[in-house]
Amino acid sequence: MPRFVARPPPAMLLVLLGTTMLVLGLGAEGAPGEWPRAEEVAGSRPNVLVLFADDLGYGDLSVNGHPTILTPALDRLAASGVRFTQWYSGFHVCSPSRASMMTGRLPVRVGTAGASWTGGVFNSDSVGGLPENETTVADLLRAQGYRTKAVGKWHLGQQPKFLPTAHGFDEYYGIPYSDDMGSSAWDRYTSRDRPALPLVSSQADGTVTVLEQPTNLNLLSSRYVNESIKFMKSGSAKEAVGDDSQHGAPWFLYVAFNHVHVPNFASQDFCNTSIRGRFGDAIQELDDAVGAIVSAIPSPDDTIIFFTSDNGPWLVKRISGGSAGVFRDGKETTWEGGVREPGIIAWPGKIRGGRISHQVVATYDIFATAVALAGGTLPDDRVIDGKDLSPVLFGSHRGNAALPTNAVHPCIFIYKGTPGLGCPTDHPNCPGLWATRCGAYKLHRVTSNTTFGSRPNQGVFHDPPLIYNVEQDPGESYPLDPASAEYKAQRASIEAAMSAHEATLRPVPNQMASGLNPDLRVCCDRSKNCICNPENFEVFVCSPVGDV
Amino acid sequence: MPRFVARPPPAMLLVLLGTTMLVLGLGAEGAPGEWPRAEEVAGSRPNVLVLFADDLGYGDLSVNGHPTILTPALDRLAASGVRFTQWYSGFHVCSPSRASMMTGRLPVRVGTAGASWTGGVFNSDSVGGLPENETTVADLLRAQGYRTKAVGKWHLGQQPKFLPTAHGFDEYYGIPYSDDMGSSAWDRYTSRDRPALPLVSSQADGTVTVLEQPTNLNLLSSRYVNESIKFMKSGSAKEAVGDDSQHGAPWFLYVAFNHVHVPNFASQDFCNTSIRGRFGDAIQELDDAVGAIVSAIPSPDDTIIFFTSDNGPWLVKRISGGSAGVFRDGKETTWEGGVREPGIIAWPGKIRGGRISHQVVATYDIFATAVALAGGTLPDDRVIDGKDLSPVLFGSHRGNAALPTNAVHPCIFIYKGTPGLGCPTDHPNCPGLWATRCGAYKLHRVTSNTTFGSRPNQGVFHDPPLIYNVEQDPGESYPLDPASAEYKAQRASIEAAMSAHEATLRPVPNQMASGLNPDLRVCCDRSKNCICNPENFEVFVCSPVGDV
Repeated sequence: MPRFVARPPPAMLLVLLGTTMLVLGLGAEGAPGEWPRAEEVAGSRPNVLVLFADDLGYGDLSVNGHPTILTPALDRLAASGVRFTQWYSGFHVCSPSRASMMTGRLPVRVGTAGASWTGGVFNSDSVGGLPENETTVADLLRAQGYRTKAVGKWHLGQQPKFLPTAHGFDEYYGIPYSDDMGSSAWDRYTSRDRPALPLVSSQADGTVTVLEQPTNLNLLSSRYVNESIKFMKSGSAKEAVGDDSQHGAPWFLYVAFNHVHVPNFASQDFCNTSIRGRFGDAIQELDDAVGAIVSAIPSPDDTIIFFTSDNGPWLVKRISGGSAGVFRDGKETTWEGGVREPGIIAWPGKIRGGRISHQVVATYDIFATAVALAGGTLPDDRVIDGKDLSPVLFGSHRGNAALPTNAVHPCIFIYKGTPGLGCPTDHPNCPGLWATRCGAYKLHRVTSNTTFGSRPNQGVFHDPPLIYNVEQDPGESYPLDPASAEYKAQRASIEAAMSAHEATLRPVPNQMASGLNPDLRVCCDRSKNCICNPENFEVFVCSPVGDV
Repeated sequence: MPRFVARPPPAMLLVLLGTTMLVLGLGAEGAPGEWPRAEEVAGSRPNVLVLFADDLGYGDLSVNGHPTILTPALDRLAASGVRFTQWYSGFHVCSPSRASMMTGRLPVRVGTAGASWTGGVFNSDSVGGLPENETTVADLLRAQGYRTKAVGKWHLGQQPKFLPTAHGFDEYYGIPYSDDMGSSAWDRYTSRDRPALPLVSSQADGTVTVLEQPTNLNLLSSRYVNESIKFMKSGSAKEAVGDDSQHGAPWFLYVAFNHVHVPNFASQDFCNTSIRGRFGDAIQELDDAVGAIVSAIPSPDDTIIFFTSDNGPWLVKRISGGSAGVFRDGKETTWEGGVREPGIIAWPGKIRGGRISHQVVATYDIFATAVALAGGTLPDDRVIDGKDLSPVLFGSHRGNAALPTNAVHPCIFIYKGTPGLGCPTDHPNCPGLWATRCGAYKLHRVTSNTTFGSRPNQGVFHDPPLIYNVEQDPGESYPLDPASAEYKAQRASIEAAMSAHEATLRPVPNQMASGLNPDLRVCCDRSKNCICNPENFEVFVCSPVGDV
């Protein structure tokens, strides 16, 4: 088990801040030495704001090159901080990815890597959820005196025992799963055979209230913004700890937008505002919400902001799904398009802005970074996969050292599902771990494809494995020749890393294999068939839903 | 023939500056009204700097989202001005694209659309070139009293009668064609059967000097920078005209880099500086050169800067070619990847910076825009396809009007070659005009593919034609259903526009069909087999050339 190093020595800083960071001159710049170093910031207990989008592709932001979507607020956020271009989500679909962000651990360690060897998510009727014995970033930050709140999509179990308020959050407000997992005005389903989409709130004492069912998606974005601002401005509800008690308690706010998952809902203010169509309307409403929340932060100089999404664009939804930009394929696959995400970290006055980083990082690093900044201690009784990114974020060093981009993560392990389950009879080897990136190279044991609108197949087994240099060939177009020395060397070292990694896995209950039970669904009133707000089926819908 | 309007009325300005421009807050911003309007700037005779890359894809800049290439100078230039995301080159390969930029006319009107119905370029031995009766932007700016210079790749005919100095430039310094069209240390060819790559200079009096043959590509970028700076700083060589003679003569500098065409040469300073590999080294040397030239402009407040490239990435070269980002395919095709280019226009103090524009514009608009700013008059005896972009560039209006992105160009006509030539016997219809975009929709009569490293085929004919909404589906992945009303309406209107456009064509001599003649090649000394600098075959080469 790796020993967590919260405060790397100065020598490490010099190495980490090399050629992969360049000043673009877009943001405020200080003279070298003006910016605090990692060891000066560790334990300083800033507020932590995590802004989390749904099904957003790497290529969907204008700052990442999208030709017809405008995301001015996210572009500004990127310009004010560090924009990461080699940021990996924890998984290629929602629930596992979110579990890894919350726990700092790969989904396979948490029992949330899917009900089969090819992956999966929680449903509106799931029996399982994020296990009670997992420690979340909210648990650790609350232990450091933080006020904590989750707003938005949860998708780690809809039962009260799995909700955010059972996992370290003082309060929760949102839709507990995906916005296409229940009927609404935007997504009625002919038979209304799924429960109406609920909006709930819950408290740490276990109280859960269904606020609306179905909820009015036109109001959702502004409600999330209002709940977020209300929380940020509500001041200290508990005794502050540590040496900065004069500040009042810091806060941790996790805002998980339902945008830009299908259906591409958008309120009247955003309907038909984007030439990208309904998907563009939705992302522009997301962007506006991000801007509203960021601009309302009461003490921006004391607040670190993270922005990313759970997984790549859902290309299966064709024009209603997003774009991975240069990357191959999208959600539901282990190609780069499935797991490569926009990633932005900003903290005015503490993190030098206007930077692009090529460092290989992951969504689960939010866990370790936030805990280090909060002065907390990581659990030492389990494997934590996330790394503290402070050495990448802080300090002012430039320099031209040939820094490998795998300084933080020597390897990234990319699972498609849970190993050992349901192997098809025509193949003896069901790895679960389909792909691994070490350094610039990525090895694929198995691939599946969704591009051009087809559903993903069950996997194409590659023997010998495919290997790409994804820094030189980010589109995974040109596999190395298996006869080449480069291929042989990379295969040997990556397969060794995979074996070493797989040896760290321990059997855990598979939360997604524990089945469905309609009795467990969120329901305002069973006598009303879980429909307490039928008027919300009649609210404004921007345009015909088409092929979503 | 369209009547050119150099100074649109104020009402047009209000319409043009609508939702397609948003402030990102990255650059300096003034209060509304602080920025000059188009009619205040027209005829003000700024210096004009055109920076032109070779084979650069839309996705190759970090500001356009490339994950492993850093282009800080171009990113800064974009942040200081307007970054266009729907910018079309005049053609999918070098020579025709450059001809359209120089003349403001589609290549087919100039006789440079290829020796066949599928396109082509000039060679090192070409008989043809940019016709003497064409009027270039340099001709028109020189007539307005500008000093003019071309630096870099020309590729519009290597004979003295076709060089820049025969087309309005006072001076020329550069390689007269592509850097893979002659042998060098970076690209020797086993037999050295092509002439060694020459570096030439020429003067308006017809003097042509071969400076080096082969040239030392390691020095090329710094030589281009030095030539550019020397010219910008050299002051007035001729009498200034007009009402601002106190400024001295303004200048027009066209810098056409040989980067990032294969071979991906880069000097020792840039060798192995990019994790993108040799292509990344080359683009980072290009970016550095751009930064050096821009930062050396003697009077930046009096200088408008244009940056773009001739055509999309050469995917045939696999990892040695660039990236079109989200766009489909690349160079040699009429998919968006072949013709969609990075486009940046900046002018400190005159053009409000930090903007992204979705307006559909084209490289040949540089011609009309520069002439309008110089106070010149467009030729009225021929069709000019370029439009003055001033209404898009100047003024401070924001607003939320639903501006169609085709306000400048209702349609973009995308040729693959010269109509009527060499039709394959298995198809009766050889259009030359393969694709046309009108508004958000693009119709393909014929397509060809190069993706994943294969050579382009001879064309797949589509009957009925393919139609995509390229604003909602920039990757051209989801064609409209031919049975849909949307398809039928778009097909009717686009085909009507194509017919109207085709009616404006007039037969002209096909410059690329006039053949090759080795006696016309650039040669320092025939007795030395055109090799006067054999030592340059032995200079530093960054790494083995591999698959270029």
